[in-house]
Amino acid sequence: MENAQNGVTRNLTLLTEFCQLGVAGGAFGNQMADDIAYFDLYFRAVPDEGGFIIAAGLAQAIDVLQNLHFSPEDLAYLRQTGRFDEPFLAYLADFAFTCDVWAVPEGTPVFPYEPILTVRGPLVQAQFVESILLMILNHQSLIATKANRIVRAAEGRPVYEFGTRRAHGADSALYGARAAYIGGCSGTTQVQAARQWGIPVYFTMTHSWVQAFEREYDAFAAFARQYPNDCVLLVDTYSTLHSGLPNAIRVFNDVLAPMGVRPKGIRIDSGDITYLTKKARRMLDDAGYADCPITVSNALDEDIIRDMLIQGARADSFGVGERLITAASDPVLSGVYKLSAIERNGQIIPKIKISDNTGKISLPGVKTVWRLFDRELGKATADLITLHTEEPDQSAPYELFDPIYTWKRKTIDHFIARRLLQPVFVGGRCVYAAPTLPEIRRYCEQQIHTLWEEVTRFEKPHHYYVDLSQSLWDLRQDMLQSVSAEGGNDHA
Amino acid sequence: MENAQNGVTRNLTLLTEFCQLGVAGGAFGNQMADDIAYFDLYFRAVPDEGGFIIAAGLAQAIDVLQNLHFSPEDLAYLRQTGRFDEPFLAYLADFAFTCDVWAVPEGTPVFPYEPILTVRGPLVQAQFVESILLMILNHQSLIATKANRIVRAAEGRPVYEFGTRRAHGADSALYGARAAYIGGCSGTTQVQAARQWGIPVYFTMTHSWVQAFEREYDAFAAFARQYPNDCVLLVDTYSTLHSGLPNAIRVFNDVLAPMGVRPKGIRIDSGDITYLTKKARRMLDDAGYADCPITVSNALDEDIIRDMLIQGARADSFGVGERLITAASDPVLSGVYKLSAIERNGQIIPKIKISDNTGKISLPGVKTVWRLFDRELGKATADLITLHTEEPDQSAPYELFDPIYTWKRKTIDHFIARRLLQPVFVGGRCVYAAPTLPEIRRYCEQQIHTLWEEVTRFEKPHHYYVDLSQSLWDLRQDMLQSVSAEGGNDHA
Repeated sequence: MENAQNGVTRNLTLLTEFCQLGVAGGAFGNQMADDIAYFDLYFRAVPDEGGFIIAAGLAQAIDVLQNLHFSPEDLAYLRQTGRFDEPFLAYLADFAFTCDVWAVPEGTPVFPYEPILTVRGPLVQAQFVESILLMILNHQSLIATKANRIVRAAEGRPVYEFGTRRAHGADSALYGARAAYIGGCSGTTQVQAARQWGIPVYFTMTHSWVQAFEREYDAFAAFARQYPNDCVLLVDTYSTLHSGLPNAIRVFNDVLAPMGVRPKGIRIDSGDITYLTKKARRMLDDAGYADCPITVSNALDEDIIRDMLIQGARADSFGVGERLITAASDPVLSGVYKLSAIERNGQIIPKIKISDNTGKISLPGVKTVWRLFDRELGKATADLITLHTEEPDQSAPYELFDPIYTWKRKTIDHFIARRLLQPVFVGGRCVYAAPTLPEIRRYCEQQIHTLWEEVTRFEKPHHYYVDLSQSLWDLRQDMLQSVSAEGGNDHA
Repeated sequence: MENAQNGVTRNLTLLTEFCQLGVAGGAFGNQMADDIAYFDLYFRAVPDEGGFIIAAGLAQAIDVLQNLHFSPEDLAYLRQTGRFDEPFLAYLADFAFTCDVWAVPEGTPVFPYEPILTVRGPLVQAQFVESILLMILNHQSLIATKANRIVRAAEGRPVYEFGTRRAHGADSALYGARAAYIGGCSGTTQVQAARQWGIPVYFTMTHSWVQAFEREYDAFAAFARQYPNDCVLLVDTYSTLHSGLPNAIRVFNDVLAPMGVRPKGIRIDSGDITYLTKKARRMLDDAGYADCPITVSNALDEDIIRDMLIQGARADSFGVGERLITAASDPVLSGVYKLSAIERNGQIIPKIKISDNTGKISLPGVKTVWRLFDRELGKATADLITLHTEEPDQSAPYELFDPIYTWKRKTIDHFIARRLLQPVFVGGRCVYAAPTLPEIRRYCEQQIHTLWEEVTRFEKPHHYYVDLSQSLWDLRQDMLQSVSAEGGNDHA
């Protein structure tokens, strides 16, 4: 089980917001428990003003949904809050998840406003899972997206996840390392994540190792003897160029060469790293270690890495910690979970949430999402959100239009429409064959290659089309107008 | 147990960085296992350029240290990495934590460069716990500090923690809610944290509740009947002023008044909140509900709250989510864990880590930290880091000096010196009587009141003195000079 750790599965059932239980209890008390609700989970904006988000976290979401149950202690706590009656508490005691769930596979690049997960089921249940689903998908998608930016900035050089010590709690470290791997990192320093998902573990030394010895040379020599095949020496404890590099080269000569072992690298973690890598490269080359890679670390992110490479830094790989594991430049992903329809007595009633903040208006109705690929180039042209009963006709030209600036239109032809939302639960039973983590990572890389460079660039990326079918657009327009006619706007 | 959840204690032993195990294994292999190491954990900078950090997370750190053990699966994984020999794996299989630990109590305001936790013990062990201690203390101290900024900006109005859905994984939500309460929040929406530590749980309604009904009035009326004593109505689903407020007032009149119940409040979650609160206040007052509080939420933080209050917003309480739970404006706390001394054959050898980044130079030697309070005013004047054998003489004037600009000197008199670091573990046995969470919260509030306003202000706070004793300063200076004489600087 994905959420299991050392054989123990945590019960995250109460890791929810009290309002979810309040609404669930209210729906139960108001005989709305049999109403079938549809909720869509989607993002409102891309972090760092980037072009796309990488969806991640589905495996953990599945795990939590499969393990929902209220312990006697949970129920005792809820009882003593005084908000819930006994019939509802009895319902919770026998809680069984019976919803349908659709979701986009992990590693898929996604765009604002398109549902990446849809829950259909009894209002009581579908409401209850809001907080935990948002928390898991917001977190891992945020970190996968950030990691992918950093990996792309490194232009093919490996990036290792170094963030555990600055993570926001154990799950931020653990699932952050998982998400970073999905986003393209080559490994992690964190042992639990490495063990749990088979992520390559990155081995390095610490400053304290160097300090524990009388002399830096002795520390390097001892490390080289202990770990000859992992000999990456940290050269900045005293002075990178005047002490660390000369001692490293001596140890390569004195300890590794007699064993016939080539050094695995040196690492620089402070100082003017761009400058130091150039000097270090020259010193290593001159000493006959042109094959010795240089790893750098120290509060790196995609902007610093790009800048270092522009300035000619001779770094061969990067260790990226705090700014990756916290997504420091933009640490909030904007996922929301909105009611889109209620099914009552077999009839589907679309629902909408209006707001003065136009970005907070939700898309009503039961929907599905299509990605339209150019049939020849294989490139993604646009995403199309339709009512769930619609299917784009791939044999004829299709006219896309911007949902706000509706006069902006584009007709596409020779396209393949692929459904993004896959069935995950049917009637509470998981039907999803989850890929392995390396499979997710490969899929992610492939899918990003289907995006045009205009969409993947860092600065002012092209706004990828996420359009609505005419029927969905009409539905939303009608509902907005009827609400507006009833009430008007706050500033009218 | 603090780390237990629903009776299950997680084993976080492998939640470490591989380098810690590498160094531990190396120390073991090099017969350094009996060397006694001293490590200090300290912060390098205050987030948001604030005046102080609130230390938090000790209870969880204690819990992890008490539960360190390697499962057979952990050992199997470590064996197959091929980096460790059987004697070391056998040592890990019987791992028992035997270190001494000192720490400042949770809720204490602390300052950069002063040790907030010190570990003394066999190098293998003291090194191994680096990552997990940093992760826990960095995280909770970050959130407690951020929460306290927000609470102070609210000027006495309650602030509730709303962040679960945007947290970085379950522990970010759970321990974030705990830390936010330490920092002064009045409650949380998160059920698990509320249950686990007795934090007041905040009850509210959701947009989906309103949408699930045909009409907003019906939704409000049903909620008021279901939860008459918790009737906070969310009024912004359609139009705050033209629909939400009028419907709320009708429901207060139609449903609550006949029961003799006063409304608990309204909540506004979108739109121009400052403007809307003023209009809402007027409407509520005119309808006879001058006692009905207004709660606001929507991506708030201390800057937005201060600005809203300057503009006269009529908000009575605040729900603060994503920007609190992620500390969005500055989400990385800079805690580090540095070797300060090695005890070998009974002799203590001070250790230092040099760096071109002068902020990364560590303080050598075994130390303790004193807070000097003015005897009459009770205000904190300065912190003083001394060698562990020193104790400031409180009966005589004491000359403080800036450790960098040493000509800046100040003599204080009539002071009380309080030791900040308390014994937590002695020989691996916990000796700390941990306070309850409400006690920590009260202590935190009291301690902040001992700081001068110049230190607590938001913009350009006064730099609180953290000075070194002459002996400690001399030790550092001697070590810096001897290293410099050996190697020189990278740019020399």
